[in-house]
Amino acid sequence: MASSSNENLTVAGIGLASAAGGISYADRDDIVLMSLAPGSQTAAVFTNNAFCAAPVQVARAHLAAVAPRFLLINSGNANAGTGEPGLRSCYETCRQVAAAAGCAMNEILPFSTGVIGEDLPTEPFARELPGMMNALLIDGWERASQAIMTTDTRPKLVSEQVEIDGETVTVTGMAKGAGMIRPDMATMLAFIATDARVTRPILNTVLQTAVADTFNSITVDGDTSTNDACVLTATGHAEVGIEDLGSDDGQAFQQAVKNVCDQLATAIIEDAEGATKLVRIRVSEARDRDEARQVGYTVAHSPLVKTALFASDPNWGRILAAVGRAGLPDLDIDQIQISLEDVIIVSRGGRDAAYTEAAGQAVFDQPHFTINISLGRGEVAASVLTCDLSYDYVKINAEYRS
Amino acid sequence: MASSSNENLTVAGIGLASAAGGISYADRDDIVLMSLAPGSQTAAVFTNNAFCAAPVQVARAHLAAVAPRFLLINSGNANAGTGEPGLRSCYETCRQVAAAAGCAMNEILPFSTGVIGEDLPTEPFARELPGMMNALLIDGWERASQAIMTTDTRPKLVSEQVEIDGETVTVTGMAKGAGMIRPDMATMLAFIATDARVTRPILNTVLQTAVADTFNSITVDGDTSTNDACVLTATGHAEVGIEDLGSDDGQAFQQAVKNVCDQLATAIIEDAEGATKLVRIRVSEARDRDEARQVGYTVAHSPLVKTALFASDPNWGRILAAVGRAGLPDLDIDQIQISLEDVIIVSRGGRDAAYTEAAGQAVFDQPHFTINISLGRGEVAASVLTCDLSYDYVKINAEYRS
Repeated sequence: MASSSNENLTVAGIGLASAAGGISYADRDDIVLMSLAPGSQTAAVFTNNAFCAAPVQVARAHLAAVAPRFLLINSGNANAGTGEPGLRSCYETCRQVAAAAGCAMNEILPFSTGVIGEDLPTEPFARELPGMMNALLIDGWERASQAIMTTDTRPKLVSEQVEIDGETVTVTGMAKGAGMIRPDMATMLAFIATDARVTRPILNTVLQTAVADTFNSITVDGDTSTNDACVLTATGHAEVGIEDLGSDDGQAFQQAVKNVCDQLATAIIEDAEGATKLVRIRVSEARDRDEARQVGYTVAHSPLVKTALFASDPNWGRILAAVGRAGLPDLDIDQIQISLEDVIIVSRGGRDAAYTEAAGQAVFDQPHFTINISLGRGEVAASVLTCDLSYDYVKINAEYRS
Repeated sequence: MASSSNENLTVAGIGLASAAGGISYADRDDIVLMSLAPGSQTAAVFTNNAFCAAPVQVARAHLAAVAPRFLLINSGNANAGTGEPGLRSCYETCRQVAAAAGCAMNEILPFSTGVIGEDLPTEPFARELPGMMNALLIDGWERASQAIMTTDTRPKLVSEQVEIDGETVTVTGMAKGAGMIRPDMATMLAFIATDARVTRPILNTVLQTAVADTFNSITVDGDTSTNDACVLTATGHAEVGIEDLGSDDGQAFQQAVKNVCDQLATAIIEDAEGATKLVRIRVSEARDRDEARQVGYTVAHSPLVKTALFASDPNWGRILAAVGRAGLPDLDIDQIQISLEDVIIVSRGGRDAAYTEAAGQAVFDQPHFTINISLGRGEVAASVLTCDLSYDYVKINAEYRS
């Protein structure tokens, strides 16, 4: 059984320290140091954007070389689009952690989020890191989850406990990112840790599986960031091992990680600036997962669908037109059924005879709902979580920087 | 030499009549009948949307069977998402034209634009068509270009004359569509005619070549309509033939058609509701045309880039991030150069050392400008014409139907 709670979210083997470096904000923390106990295993996924920031390049290389001992995170500056000087600054901050900790430089994974194209100052790190190294706390999660925020309006921190082999295992995660709506300032970063003992290959599978249906199935506007990253560390301090993902224990652990990712991903979409609605696009009866996701994303990214969501207007023509242009070969529109929750609006490619505007309106008036699209050509389903496109989205993104 | 003018836009062999059928608007024309002289050859391209309207299905089938004699166009109702009854209505309107003209039903190509999902009434056609058949005028272009409008704020009608073999050939076209920003109401339709004598295969090539760089290289929001169509008819009344597109005459004719398409496509983007800026995204040094267009469309569709255009904010991080997520294999960000007109803003993947905000701002403050993106990996270029994403876009699309 898994339980969700923020009360007991510490993870044995993980220490956290936060400090106000003054990188871009006054009077708030913007540097986080997270220590991973010796023997910890770590998996990570990074942005697919070819334009990836200096810390992403460095973190990828370091993770490929050794098991990391520290994560170093800063907000306020993304260290992206900064070229060779950006790489040098990034390496310098890793060197500072290594010097303070007495470990190798490539045992540090760096992460940055904030403005693109500005040089990352290294002095705040040099000044704060020695003190932070002596202030690592097992209950530093809440403060850290606030320090990594940029345009987020609230911190995102969740924890699950799961019983495995008679022992309680904890999975705790924090994330930031007000959607991908402003890559300049709203990189998605997520840091998840568990005290279970898990090998690196199993950890990779668990993370990739969890991310596919959660962080990689949300979208605000399709603009992926240069800095996105999601990290999962297993310290092994609970003395409970996950050796077989096919076992009941393995499944329970996988589900706990997925639950944490799902709650963080949902919190990110709910906090997307300008968003007034949280909408799941569920595509079923597809031939395969790829085409289900292709349709889901095309609908989720359609500005016409998104403005209709904002207007609470159940405009089925816009949804159907988006399905039609998703690029599926041999798509038979006559097989398509669309329902808003359980209200059937489109059947056999046209408005359902029994549909009433009042019934559709009642669904669209809700802050959270699901649009179900059945393609009638297979047996696979997938879903995408998105939000609407509001005046405030334009306002925020047009006025930012000015 | 080609000259552009609206003064002498009649095309020998083409007649036009317009009438107020009351389909959806009061006190304005909404039905157009266009007669094509016997012997005319016609080429057409239709929407790629799998969800295509009844008239698109019928027009495709009719065009495949015989050379058309009439185009029948209505605004106010798209006859899309209307299922079997919609097809029956469409056939009925074709039958009415055929009866009045004494020709076969499949010699009529039907086109509709307007609201999706409403039954198309056939009575207005039955009432107006006999009179229209007797009122076909060679100079009916201006009135027709107004009758096909939906959300357009102004008619779109252009003409080019080109000297071929000592004779003047005319190419005249009209279009409607306030961008693809509202498929419910803003289908793109374009009807182009010439008095040159051109075979069907050559006409197909000329149209497809012209459309690729014009109508198929513009985008407002990526939402293609269920009803989009572009038609090119050659009546042969000028007694001048185009037999070889490789010849000087062939090239001049191809260019004239392309010029007409280009002017109409530009007029559509300029009239996109909510648009305040007309921006060309020119991608060069690509390996092939497909990847150049892929980058161009990704940048043009990025809500973050579009809101930055609206805000007149030369935010190069957003442009570069969009290039980065366009999905090009082995893209080397360090090879990328971006310039705003001739102001270099990004070189070698980062902000150009000589760039100043003042210089970038001066370009972005203009209503029309080009963003040049050089990928540094090939020799092929392509461009996409787009507009910004404004408050009014959200307003128009959120409030429409309410």
